[in-house]
Amino acid sequence: MNHSRTLKVGIVGLGRLGRRHAENLMSRVAGAELVAACSPLPAELEWARDALQVPHLYADYQALLAHDGLDAVFLVTPTSLHPQQIIQALQAGKHVFCEKPLSLDLEDCRLVSAEAARHPQLKVMIGFVRRFDASYQDAYEKIQQGAIGAPFMVYSQTCDQHDPDGFFVKFAATSGGIFLDCSVHDIDLARWLLGNPRPVRVYASGTRAIHQDLQQFQDVDNGVAICEFDNGKLATFYASRTMAHGHDTMTEITGTAGRLTVGSNPRKNRLEIADAHGVRNECVPSFFERFEDAFLTEVSTFVDAIRRQRKLVLTLDDATEATRIGIALRESLLSKQPVLL
Amino acid sequence: MNHSRTLKVGIVGLGRLGRRHAENLMSRVAGAELVAACSPLPAELEWARDALQVPHLYADYQALLAHDGLDAVFLVTPTSLHPQQIIQALQAGKHVFCEKPLSLDLEDCRLVSAEAARHPQLKVMIGFVRRFDASYQDAYEKIQQGAIGAPFMVYSQTCDQHDPDGFFVKFAATSGGIFLDCSVHDIDLARWLLGNPRPVRVYASGTRAIHQDLQQFQDVDNGVAICEFDNGKLATFYASRTMAHGHDTMTEITGTAGRLTVGSNPRKNRLEIADAHGVRNECVPSFFERFEDAFLTEVSTFVDAIRRQRKLVLTLDDATEATRIGIALRESLLSKQPVLL
Amino acid sequence: MNHSRTLKVGIVGLGRLGRRHAENLMSRVAGAELVAACSPLPAELEWARDALQVPHLYADYQALLAHDGLDAVFLVTPTSLHPQQIIQALQAGKHVFCEKPLSLDLEDCRLVSAEAARHPQLKVMIGFVRRFDASYQDAYEKIQQGAIGAPFMVYSQTCDQHDPDGFFVKFAATSGGIFLDCSVHDIDLARWLLGNPRPVRVYASGTRAIHQDLQQFQDVDNGVAICEFDNGKLATFYASRTMAHGHDTMTEITGTAGRLTVGSNPRKNRLEIADAHGVRNECVPSFFERFEDAFLTEVSTFVDAIRRQRKLVLTLDDATEATRIGIALRESLLSKQPVLL
Amino acid sequence: MNHSRTLKVGIVGLGRLGRRHAENLMSRVAGAELVAACSPLPAELEWARDALQVPHLYADYQALLAHDGLDAVFLVTPTSLHPQQIIQALQAGKHVFCEKPLSLDLEDCRLVSAEAARHPQLKVMIGFVRRFDASYQDAYEKIQQGAIGAPFMVYSQTCDQHDPDGFFVKFAATSGGIFLDCSVHDIDLARWLLGNPRPVRVYASGTRAIHQDLQQFQDVDNGVAICEFDNGKLATFYASRTMAHGHDTMTEITGTAGRLTVGSNPRKNRLEIADAHGVRNECVPSFFERFEDAFLTEVSTFVDAIRRQRKLVLTLDDATEATRIGIALRESLLSKQPVLL
Repeated sequence: MNHSRTLKVGIVGLGRLGRRHAENLMSRVAGAELVAACSPLPAELEWARDALQVPHLYADYQALLAHDGLDAVFLVTPTSLHPQQIIQALQAGKHVFCEKPLSLDLEDCRLVSAEAARHPQLKVMIGFVRRFDASYQDAYEKIQQGAIGAPFMVYSQTCDQHDPDGFFVKFAATSGGIFLDCSVHDIDLARWLLGNPRPVRVYASGTRAIHQDLQQFQDVDNGVAICEFDNGKLATFYASRTMAHGHDTMTEITGTAGRLTVGSNPRKNRLEIADAHGVRNECVPSFFERFEDAFLTEVSTFVDAIRRQRKLVLTLDDATEATRIGIALRESLLSKQPVLL
Repeated sequence: MNHSRTLKVGIVGLGRLGRRHAENLMSRVAGAELVAACSPLPAELEWARDALQVPHLYADYQALLAHDGLDAVFLVTPTSLHPQQIIQALQAGKHVFCEKPLSLDLEDCRLVSAEAARHPQLKVMIGFVRRFDASYQDAYEKIQQGAIGAPFMVYSQTCDQHDPDGFFVKFAATSGGIFLDCSVHDIDLARWLLGNPRPVRVYASGTRAIHQDLQQFQDVDNGVAICEFDNGKLATFYASRTMAHGHDTMTEITGTAGRLTVGSNPRKNRLEIADAHGVRNECVPSFFERFEDAFLTEVSTFVDAIRRQRKLVLTLDDATEATRIGIALRESLLSKQPVLL
Repeated sequence: MNHSRTLKVGIVGLGRLGRRHAENLMSRVAGAELVAACSPLPAELEWARDALQVPHLYADYQALLAHDGLDAVFLVTPTSLHPQQIIQALQAGKHVFCEKPLSLDLEDCRLVSAEAARHPQLKVMIGFVRRFDASYQDAYEKIQQGAIGAPFMVYSQTCDQHDPDGFFVKFAATSGGIFLDCSVHDIDLARWLLGNPRPVRVYASGTRAIHQDLQQFQDVDNGVAICEFDNGKLATFYASRTMAHGHDTMTEITGTAGRLTVGSNPRKNRLEIADAHGVRNECVPSFFERFEDAFLTEVSTFVDAIRRQRKLVLTLDDATEATRIGIALRESLLSKQPVLL
Repeated sequence: MNHSRTLKVGIVGLGRLGRRHAENLMSRVAGAELVAACSPLPAELEWARDALQVPHLYADYQALLAHDGLDAVFLVTPTSLHPQQIIQALQAGKHVFCEKPLSLDLEDCRLVSAEAARHPQLKVMIGFVRRFDASYQDAYEKIQQGAIGAPFMVYSQTCDQHDPDGFFVKFAATSGGIFLDCSVHDIDLARWLLGNPRPVRVYASGTRAIHQDLQQFQDVDNGVAICEFDNGKLATFYASRTMAHGHDTMTEITGTAGRLTVGSNPRKNRLEIADAHGVRNECVPSFFERFEDAFLTEVSTFVDAIRRQRKLVLTLDDATEATRIGIALRESLLSKQPVLL
């Protein structure tokens, strides 16, 4: 593909995150053009037409794939649809960006990998957005430069602000549980920052601090886990749905000569308030605000990789491994036993 | 102008900041199109052509103004050229964005205002970029909401990282001195955040801590000043060229019920390092990184104001008043006496 | 005992921590008088005589217990001696303060408790010093006041600064391992802050990041653990011997309406440095500096409890329970299986 | 005086701060014994007798000075009494610790210095307590070690929490105004940290943000000032009575190679709260809590200097110079003109 050719992209799914990707593709990413949108929901297509003037709208995914000249698809669809939609896109000769997680089913992950292997000229990337955050990138580079010696331990948490409406409980039936929904990000970060060690054993536990109705889904609203890798590397994860102060994503990487921490205080911005409550800062309410810039960098990186034929550092194997570990965490939570990997 | 019509913009001056504006206009601002660039320097025009594919290039400003269909110009030129270039653009019927400061000469400021008054349908905005920073915006809104009671005092500093090459000294002859070059931002912030009080009296002092060669320009590398406004409002300013740790822009606004601080620690990002030096964060090296997002918001705001015919909150009078106070600070520094306004 | 009578105290063991207790007893605690010191090491007794002018010196513990008019003993001796020394002191009618941990052996803990039960008029307190730290006290009080709703989760770490001499390795044979030596503090804090829940199941893991010679003691230099209590309460512990930046004791308590964090940055003091390394603070080098004030409050509290016949909130049962959980953590570390309690 | 001889001390004045000094002298300072207390107020003497069991009580200052064997007096009395009381104590052969400020009158300062010069064997120290704070001490030592290159600028503030009762207004008539009452500390710190430069010119301004009734005393509740020293050294001061969040004492020292900040956030302790208000810490309510340890160090230093015949680094000349600059600030506030020194 010619360096200067603009990539023609179609987006599938226009929920909150789909809209963000669509807006970025429409006006903030150099080298890409959002030519088509696809959704089974008329309201989502209307938004694409009215807010973004997307020229081509499809209710049917196969029809989108058949769109003349389409180079790539962005899948921001329910997780259960990911494997088949990715496979269909690859078979139609399209590059694929798909939101995380790849799948809740390990066999499906492997089918996707196998199909991707048949199309080495096509890029497939799962949206582990944190890898594209400037602070995580800085941490990664400092580790490569030896700033903390040999990294051996990660603590990583994904803690959502408490939603009094319990909106997320609706999705508990299909989310795969807190570890596959939230910790999958932390699992991917731990692997990346520790140099892709091989997981050996996991143990998980959790509690329902507020949302007792999660019991029907055998899920928890606060979960902790230990993941042991080979060569003495370790990770501890914490996921929560019940924070009072905001969305609190934090990761510590400890090495033999220092420690890096990303997000020790989820500041909303650079404003500090001194009043009757003390000295304080407000916090980002959700991952949406926290990773606003990272979502843009993620898409730009994907588009650039296709246009300049660069290798993606984030692979399908990474996504499969995150799912594999996430499944083991859930299994341990239910069995109350360590799970060997 | 039709809401959905794209604004055709020409940029003048492609130094470091000019390039940033050009890049933003080219691919990150909805509703604007960078159709032309102007510079007396061939290298700058080559960059515009090669890096951004700007279609029309001009070595001459009048030729740019004559470009067919041009709606607006962005002036990122030496301060001494600002007044005449703004006036010429207005006379040619163009909207004008011009980098700060408007001018070092109060009479020139007034000439520009007079010309602008003759073209009420044209927008003119001077680039006081900090007003468009998310944290300063948040501070402003909280003040409007009464979060700190009645605001009565501002402390604001603009402290640049020490440049061992003393690059800025070259510009000292034409910069107007540290207060007109740096504190003019703080002056504008103080006026904005305190509700546009009328300045009454200023007093300034300073020292040459490192750059003794500034003596030939009667300038200092560290300056402090007090500005008294009417109704008992006060501001204190600090400007420096000699920080060891980075660019440190910080503003405190104190009210009868609380205090807001923007930028108490000029963090580079959300990464914290714990090592033999203690617990630390790296800092933004210059205003360029500190206000990266604000530069984009600034341009978007200007473009939107034209396209949607919205009133600009940042006026030429604001820019003139900042110059007027900055000149008084310099006068006080030289005379060692308070200056009445 | 009369309110105003001064307590006559003897100290046993004058290592680093013993000296601190001795100094506090000598000149900083109202109502106590250090009348005697005991140590098998002549150098320690010389220090007591020369530095503190302690009037009576004993090489033999029984001789100290026989000292006329002695009210209480402070045991700052090797852990293996604690149970017998406490029992002997009780039998001699003395109040006892003993450094943590009570013992590494659960049966010994129970023997001590049984003996203490026979002397209800005598106070026995194990030195879980963190409970007396002003910040932990503040956290505890805020929890009682409902500031974070119902507390359900604790994360607590005890991370020592890396000692290139590996001094602590010498003690690894008798320390009981990292969990009984370090995490025992975190265990006690978790129980205290969560309202003394009953432990149900623990799981632990660890690694030797630097000190490979710990292998001979089946110990690690970095350990993590999960402790599940009844009623859905949870704790996660982290202990380390390898921090680059200082001693980093930190505890988070999460409740249904908020989170408290003690020690998120182990600042040495209120000084902040901005230089070529960024913006930073130095850190406390060891628990000794971190808990300097708490050691004094601890002793004062103990002395006051005796003089004013107040109930101690920190009981022998608390110390026994900390040992019980610590032993289970070690067992899990070795067996790689959860341990039920 | 023999090294090991205990100093016999009498205290004069038992208001809030007097009581703290009395308590420290009674039970927390090695080498000193509080043998007598003096106050014209019976209630204060009763407190000394009941709470501290001070053996000798005097309503009359001369009677105290005549107390047999008395070595030193602590004056915690109204400022207007300081000069005469110090002179009388010196004439009676007593060492003197006196609370700041030495006096509001420069001539009185000089009379005290002249008297002290006649008694070179007696120590006189004015209580500039901040010099004894661990963080300020650390800053001072780092400067001596060259950590920030050549220090050339100080920003220092003393900001009291707003007292809705306006208690301090009662004292405005005799306090000498905000600069002599509050900034005198900052003046002393600036001189100390900048290496005792000679003041050349000051300029001050201020406002009454809340306490309009200060107008009758020609005082303000918020004041700012610039103090120029020789050799290009500079200080900026801020004093306030109206903070919402607590007592906020902060000092920045900037050098050619770095900046030190003491007290950038007046944290109450190491506890951080994350709740609906964001992430926050509570603040120290007054100088009393902020400098609790420093008050003890201050007294210990004074006592040690006498017992070990050490030179005091804090001299009467320092106290006189702080008063001299403070008077000039007040003069500038009233005249709205710079004042030459």
